[in-house]
Amino acid sequence: MRVIESVAEMVGLRRELQAPVGFVPTMGYLHEGHITLVKKTREENATAVASIFVNPTQFGPREDLAHYPRDIPRDLKMLETIRTDIVFVPGSSEKMYPAGYNSWVEVSGITERLEGAVRPGHFRGVATVVAKLFNIVQPDRAYFGQKDAQQLLVIEKMVRDLNINVTVVRVPTVREPDGLAMSSRNVYLNLEERRQATVLYQSLKLAEQLYRDGEKDADRIKCQMTDLIEQQPLAKIDYISIADSTTLEELATVKIPVLVSLAVRFGNTRLIDNIILE
Amino acid sequence: MRVIESVAEMVGLRRELQAPVGFVPTMGYLHEGHITLVKKTREENATAVASIFVNPTQFGPREDLAHYPRDIPRDLKMLETIRTDIVFVPGSSEKMYPAGYNSWVEVSGITERLEGAVRPGHFRGVATVVAKLFNIVQPDRAYFGQKDAQQLLVIEKMVRDLNINVTVVRVPTVREPDGLAMSSRNVYLNLEERRQATVLYQSLKLAEQLYRDGEKDADRIKCQMTDLIEQQPLAKIDYISIADSTTLEELATVKIPVLVSLAVRFGNTRLIDNIILE
Repeated sequence: MRVIESVAEMVGLRRELQAPVGFVPTMGYLHEGHITLVKKTREENATAVASIFVNPTQFGPREDLAHYPRDIPRDLKMLETIRTDIVFVPGSSEKMYPAGYNSWVEVSGITERLEGAVRPGHFRGVATVVAKLFNIVQPDRAYFGQKDAQQLLVIEKMVRDLNINVTVVRVPTVREPDGLAMSSRNVYLNLEERRQATVLYQSLKLAEQLYRDGEKDADRIKCQMTDLIEQQPLAKIDYISIADSTTLEELATVKIPVLVSLAVRFGNTRLIDNIILE
Repeated sequence: MRVIESVAEMVGLRRELQAPVGFVPTMGYLHEGHITLVKKTREENATAVASIFVNPTQFGPREDLAHYPRDIPRDLKMLETIRTDIVFVPGSSEKMYPAGYNSWVEVSGITERLEGAVRPGHFRGVATVVAKLFNIVQPDRAYFGQKDAQQLLVIEKMVRDLNINVTVVRVPTVREPDGLAMSSRNVYLNLEERRQATVLYQSLKLAEQLYRDGEKDADRIKCQMTDLIEQQPLAKIDYISIADSTTLEELATVKIPVLVSLAVRFGNTRLIDNIILE
């Protein structure tokens, strides 16, 4: 496994890599979700590239950039174990955003809702860093987890709109045995919060069950999800959404494929999760 | 010479092209300036690609998109004569901007001044279409005329910031024998306007002469340029700028390298020109 810290070196190395090149961009502090992405990349490509970069431009001024969990030595060990070929670790922000940096990729429309509404500028930061990483690594395929459903839609739309020559591969969310979606932010939860956080997935499964039982009214489904979540005293709901799975427009009547997604706070920790009903 | 009208076909063809690939994006209605760009591309690359696309997203709602001059058969003949290998002509706007299109490249800072101040959204359209064309054609080098000085700076900044793997080559402005910079918009000028339009370059040469003679006060240089231009009764000055040639910040005292640029209207026709003092 080669660890590359320089942008120029990564660009130069690209020509030597055997195609197809698969790529998993991460913010590090890897968990089973990331490992699943890299394993799939490993299986489907001649070369598997991962990156670790905590991207400052996707954090809002009052968000958790400074405290975002980091453990690069542990990440590298994990990536080596699963036979990653190349890990791109630019390290300092200045390598990706030098002084005077001022170019941004904006995906309008789907970025104003849900996470974008709560985190203004977040998806501009995501789209920009992914565009940059795609230009640096030049992968044939890039792998993203379904857990960040809106992020996936934004990246797919950016790739389509800007004619970026990368195939975006969706990978199902990896969960803990009790259903909690894997996330680097789960480490923030204390024991009691962690226990109550299983309600996110339970509420999504409830939505699915209601739909399968014939309930098509989105508000009634959301009400029942809310009731279930509010049984957990530490849970504070940011939003529950039942939306078109491509445009993210909120639906009054459920029409598949539909994205059921939610954001819930436990103390200072904000968790998101979703399922697609098809 | 192959003429490619489909985005997918152009993307697919790219793998077969002999490197290095040089690229000249144009809006058509070619003149000596474009021809010089393509000839240089021809000399310096194994494969010479040009594109013709009147990009709607860089025109404002009250600008001349509908009337922008077009003559693709003539353009193709000219490009064939100078041994262009590939011409990418997407034709309809919908091929580049399908329904629901919503992703944009924004270069901040240098786009708010000069042309960007008069034409809001213009450089967003330019940066976006150039990013798209770079992704479609994937050139090693791309050639742009110095006449659109701010556009060149925007593209250079975008390429640097977004790690786009293309070398941007600056090519000096090509001029008519009387000094008027070549432009597709020159055809809009009537005979009298055309005659008076030579004052743009004369005023730039005056600025150069004043500077060489020791004048370092930007306002005094601008005043003399204004006086000269206003001797032409049909000329209406939009702006005269003496700015840092990288940041485009207006200078009180001339410090080389400096960009002296201006925009002047003759009737409905708006002309721009510039020189860099080094």
